Amino acid sequence: MSAQLIDGKARAAALRAEVAQGVAAFTAAHGRAPGLTVVLVGDDPASAVYVGSKGKATREAGMVSGEYRLPADTAEADLLALIAQLNADPAVDGILVQMPLPRHIDSDRVIAAIDPAKDVDGLHPVNTGLLVSGRKGLVPCTPSGCMLLITEAMGNIAGAEAVVIGRSILVGKPMAALLTNASATVTLAHSRTRDLAAHVARADIVVAAVGIPNMVQGDWIKPGACVIDVGINRIALPDGKSRLIGDVDFAAAASRAGWITPVPGGVGPMTIACLLANTLAAAHARA
Amino acid sequence: MSAQLIDGKARAAALRAEVAQGVAAFTAAHGRAPGLTVVLVGDDPASAVYVGSKGKATREAGMVSGEYRLPADTAEADLLALIAQLNADPAVDGILVQMPLPRHIDSDRVIAAIDPAKDVDGLHPVNTGLLVSGRKGLVPCTPSGCMLLITEAMGNIAGAEAVVIGRSILVGKPMAALLTNASATVTLAHSRTRDLAAHVARADIVVAAVGIPNMVQGDWIKPGACVIDVGINRIALPDGKSRLIGDVDFAAAASRAGWITPVPGGVGPMTIACLLANTLAAAHARA
Repeated sequence: MSAQLIDGKARAAALRAEVAQGVAAFTAAHGRAPGLTVVLVGDDPASAVYVGSKGKATREAGMVSGEYRLPADTAEADLLALIAQLNADPAVDGILVQMPLPRHIDSDRVIAAIDPAKDVDGLHPVNTGLLVSGRKGLVPCTPSGCMLLITEAMGNIAGAEAVVIGRSILVGKPMAALLTNASATVTLAHSRTRDLAAHVARADIVVAAVGIPNMVQGDWIKPGACVIDVGINRIALPDGKSRLIGDVDFAAAASRAGWITPVPGGVGPMTIACLLANTLAAAHARA
Repeated sequence: MSAQLIDGKARAAALRAEVAQGVAAFTAAHGRAPGLTVVLVGDDPASAVYVGSKGKATREAGMVSGEYRLPADTAEADLLALIAQLNADPAVDGILVQMPLPRHIDSDRVIAAIDPAKDVDGLHPVNTGLLVSGRKGLVPCTPSGCMLLITEAMGNIAGAEAVVIGRSILVGKPMAALLTNASATVTLAHSRTRDLAAHVARADIVVAAVGIPNMVQGDWIKPGACVIDVGINRIALPDGKSRLIGDVDFAAAASRAGWITPVPGGVGPMTIACLLANTLAAAHARA
């Protein structure tokens, strides 16, 4: 392995410590701690684990953690009513509705109902629009975390060739917007892209966010590139156990890349840290 | 010249005729014609010409054309008050504030004040966000016109390699979003891009929107590509007259391209036609 390992766990811990300091200062100045409320509908076990971790991290940062766990058959109207209540609650700075929602609920409508100023997931169309326009808004947490890792590794990325693989509104599209705003030349690749290997081969920055284990092959990587692996795929092992791997063939890519994130311990921990940072920023903007 | 010439003038005339039919049907159904109101601040001669053409085209399509021409020293608060009045006016379906605004006015604030449902220029962050998310909103007119020309020339563009040159929020960024939504693999190039020639050379679709005469050289073009030239640059001729040329070296590019738009007569006429189509769509959405 020649690549420098990007330690997302350490970077996330540093960001969380920074947020905790900011929270203490905010609390001293405003007489109240910032508040993040998470809403979970249904009983998807993975979602329940995420919500639990978010609550714990929120409290550890000194913020007020609110949590609503609603039954899977909650009516959309009731969820919208809860959101309206949270929008109006001055103690709530951030609202996060855990995705995915049950099928009978229209996620777009739910996201659009969140006050954009409290939309710490950065999914409201207004926040997408502000991001694409290069203006100040709340940025989705995962791409925000990736961007921190990239710029800390590489410094100024103006003119760099970047390839983002995956065009989701949660990761790929906001990632492309962030890289474009930082003056990289961005190609947004996806399932319909014809020659992905050729795109990756000319990229100084590769962000993989597709959810397919090892789909980015090591010998595609340009020597010295910065490789950010957003994928978290659980694969079964012969012994009946399982293991998490990314979208990038790590061992092969690490022998060519300049920097690379591991899975786990790379991008993953940054997401919650950026969520806390967004909540603090939202509290400041509202105060 | 081997390329097929894309006749934007003819295509725009067809779209305007289609809109006029739609307007007649809307008027019959709702007892009123759709209304588009244009606001011009200051006396920039080019802007005054644009506003005049928009008004004329609006009336020709059978819609109600409103026009406000405010002095250059209009206070931002007065402009915002006018927008609030137009937002509340049920006879107004589309509001267009002609850009650029005088420097003492914050354009972002003005655009954000327009009801997104009446934002027929598609510049409100909500509309940008909806476009990027692949959802229904009002799309900026110039990229919308380019997209019509591209898909009518090429048909299905899924998997095609597209390079958009220029990252403005008016053209380049929404153009990239539209092409991504149509499953092209899009590279967004700009002034900081290192090897523009190489990007253009692999592109099945090239959209140039930079405002630099002839900056895209003919021998960069991939044989058979679709070349869309958004640039409208006035250059002085030796005899003291002037002429409009695009961002693409037309003669050289036309000998390699599969399809190409001329300047003038290519993208230009599509913009107003798409503005009329947006106004009709806004009227339907509100009715």
